[in-house]
Amino acid sequence: MKIGLLGHGVVGSGVTAITDSCAVKKVRRLEVSRILVKDEWEMTDPRCTTNVEDILSDPEIEIVAECMGGIEPAHTFVRRALESGKHVVTSNKKMFAAYCGELFELAKENGVSIRYEASCGGGIPWISNLTRIRRLEPVTSFRGIFNGTTNYILSRMARTGSDFAQNLAEAQKLGYAEKDPTDDIAGYDVRYKTAITAMKAFGAIVNAEEIPTLGIADVSADDIRWASENGYVLKLFGAGRNLDDGVSLWVMPVMTGDQQVFAHITDNFNAVESESPTLGPAMFVGQGAGSLPTAHAVVQDLLDIYQDQDAEAAYAERKTVNNDTVCARFYVRTAKPEAFADVCETGIGNGAFLTKELPLSELLAMMKGCGDEHVFAAMVME
Amino acid sequence: MKIGLLGHGVVGSGVTAITDSCAVKKVRRLEVSRILVKDEWEMTDPRCTTNVEDILSDPEIEIVAECMGGIEPAHTFVRRALESGKHVVTSNKKMFAAYCGELFELAKENGVSIRYEASCGGGIPWISNLTRIRRLEPVTSFRGIFNGTTNYILSRMARTGSDFAQNLAEAQKLGYAEKDPTDDIAGYDVRYKTAITAMKAFGAIVNAEEIPTLGIADVSADDIRWASENGYVLKLFGAGRNLDDGVSLWVMPVMTGDQQVFAHITDNFNAVESESPTLGPAMFVGQGAGSLPTAHAVVQDLLDIYQDQDAEAAYAERKTVNNDTVCARFYVRTAKPEAFADVCETGIGNGAFLTKELPLSELLAMMKGCGDEHVFAAMVME
Repeated sequence: MKIGLLGHGVVGSGVTAITDSCAVKKVRRLEVSRILVKDEWEMTDPRCTTNVEDILSDPEIEIVAECMGGIEPAHTFVRRALESGKHVVTSNKKMFAAYCGELFELAKENGVSIRYEASCGGGIPWISNLTRIRRLEPVTSFRGIFNGTTNYILSRMARTGSDFAQNLAEAQKLGYAEKDPTDDIAGYDVRYKTAITAMKAFGAIVNAEEIPTLGIADVSADDIRWASENGYVLKLFGAGRNLDDGVSLWVMPVMTGDQQVFAHITDNFNAVESESPTLGPAMFVGQGAGSLPTAHAVVQDLLDIYQDQDAEAAYAERKTVNNDTVCARFYVRTAKPEAFADVCETGIGNGAFLTKELPLSELLAMMKGCGDEHVFAAMVME
Repeated sequence: MKIGLLGHGVVGSGVTAITDSCAVKKVRRLEVSRILVKDEWEMTDPRCTTNVEDILSDPEIEIVAECMGGIEPAHTFVRRALESGKHVVTSNKKMFAAYCGELFELAKENGVSIRYEASCGGGIPWISNLTRIRRLEPVTSFRGIFNGTTNYILSRMARTGSDFAQNLAEAQKLGYAEKDPTDDIAGYDVRYKTAITAMKAFGAIVNAEEIPTLGIADVSADDIRWASENGYVLKLFGAGRNLDDGVSLWVMPVMTGDQQVFAHITDNFNAVESESPTLGPAMFVGQGAGSLPTAHAVVQDLLDIYQDQDAEAAYAERKTVNNDTVCARFYVRTAKPEAFADVCETGIGNGAFLTKELPLSELLAMMKGCGDEHVFAAMVME
């Protein structure tokens, strides 16, 4: 089965590394025949081309594996591949979170499938396990640590007591964080994965921008110290719950009780958990990023298509994000604590305090109106 | 597709609970048409029979789901089902660990499949994820907490400081431990699961009795206290590694470093981890037992057969257990410490000490020869 690979960066080069050298006969039959790169200087392999038509117009190529990242031109190329009757595998969470509804329709119209295991949790078999649970029962809720970069920074802050900027620089030096780290730090990466998980777990296609998203840009060494002195570990979570009307979805830092498994997921590891009626909680821990783990997920998707496994369930539908039922206590630190006087329960000092239990939407509204754009908030989860 | 269910106890009744009430159309097509029970008084359902011929000789029944437990008559019934051209799903680890090689052959000869997700890790999708990894690459090693009963007892001892006997009685009262708890306490249950995992992960059919197996019958409150005062949590592990010549497999208590995820798997939860070249470590955490989680795994196997998914790989072969490469430091407590003088590194008091690094086989030989049948040993895993 011939495969056209779009992009030969971290993930794409992992895909050729696996398919070119794998000892398993079935995997060797997945032949990457062309590779799209952007510039002439990237043409390090005889299969490389800078002309996407060499892939999209080649009738022998049955699957397009999109590992480019970014919205455009990835989105246009994926659309055209589906329209040409080619299956698509993508590792591109940003593009897929934005266009999954449209792309499913297009795949269905053209009798092909689109798969995206690598877009969500890297090497963790999250999407395939959600698919397996859902053939038997609905998924009730999910939550987890979906981003390795921020988990690395938070783990290191907890271990060393050093501050955010220093650890971000270290993560960039090690290649764990990108030069422009906004997507990771501001929680957008987790937002994309939360939207994609909602689609797989709940059959809910949402507008990702409706998901309230708080990142860790304003976390301080003091916040981390308070957490560890009070039996918590700070983690960045994405979470969701299936409701009768819509879905609840949010992304924000969480003060995780230090007896929880989540509190002990360190470095750049991810951990994600689903809950469903008969299976109960099921947690998956592994490498959420990296060349070979993510490429492993891409190749697993290619094998699913090769073996004609159950195609993507077509029962996803548009839903609105509704966090009315999300209530919790929160840790807040701000230069304007007076704006939170009504909900403050326990003062901590230096503008930090714990709130009484209140709806997430109420907290978000107060944060927006408080006049401090660097207010830091984390949900408390015992 | 008609299913004959053997046994209507904890797991079997969970299977009918799911298949009878599931809202998913595909699952409703899995019709449990007959249920074998042992005694007349168990015939609480019109489908019940005490005559196994009503199932084995019914040509309309295409799958036999064996949830009886125990070696016989389960083994004979499963053999006969396969010989009659029926697929088999089993949750019976004891029987399957003993006869998996023979039963695979029989299934192959008769063009049917035998599946066993529920036999190993209850609701955790361990077998299916190993299958998925193995279609792409070999599994290098595995390790984990495979038994909920002992994990419940060890967690409770750590939390309360109380002794083994008291917590075993509590576990029995709650239904977590059986009246005769030997299989759990002596590590035999983990041994069965370790043998089954070796088969799936490494394609190695072993004689389970070759797996060195130490349980927790002799653990004391002092051992647990020493662990927690020294940065460890005591857990019962099963583990294995794929070697060029044979496989390494062992079952024993482990002093787990308290920064490890395994240290925070509490109560009756299980956690199992595989390691493979491109995916790296992949951990699965969930309910390792219980009626509905285990029945969930049985029904997933039924769905795999119904959907004609990839059958069981037929490339398992006989291998010998070879633990020559397993070296570690050990915590030992014994009434005969003098027998261990050559390997003792750090004395702890009351007959307890830490050894220098040594091969597991050497430790086992010394334990056997030391003259203390209640010697307690745990591997140290930072």
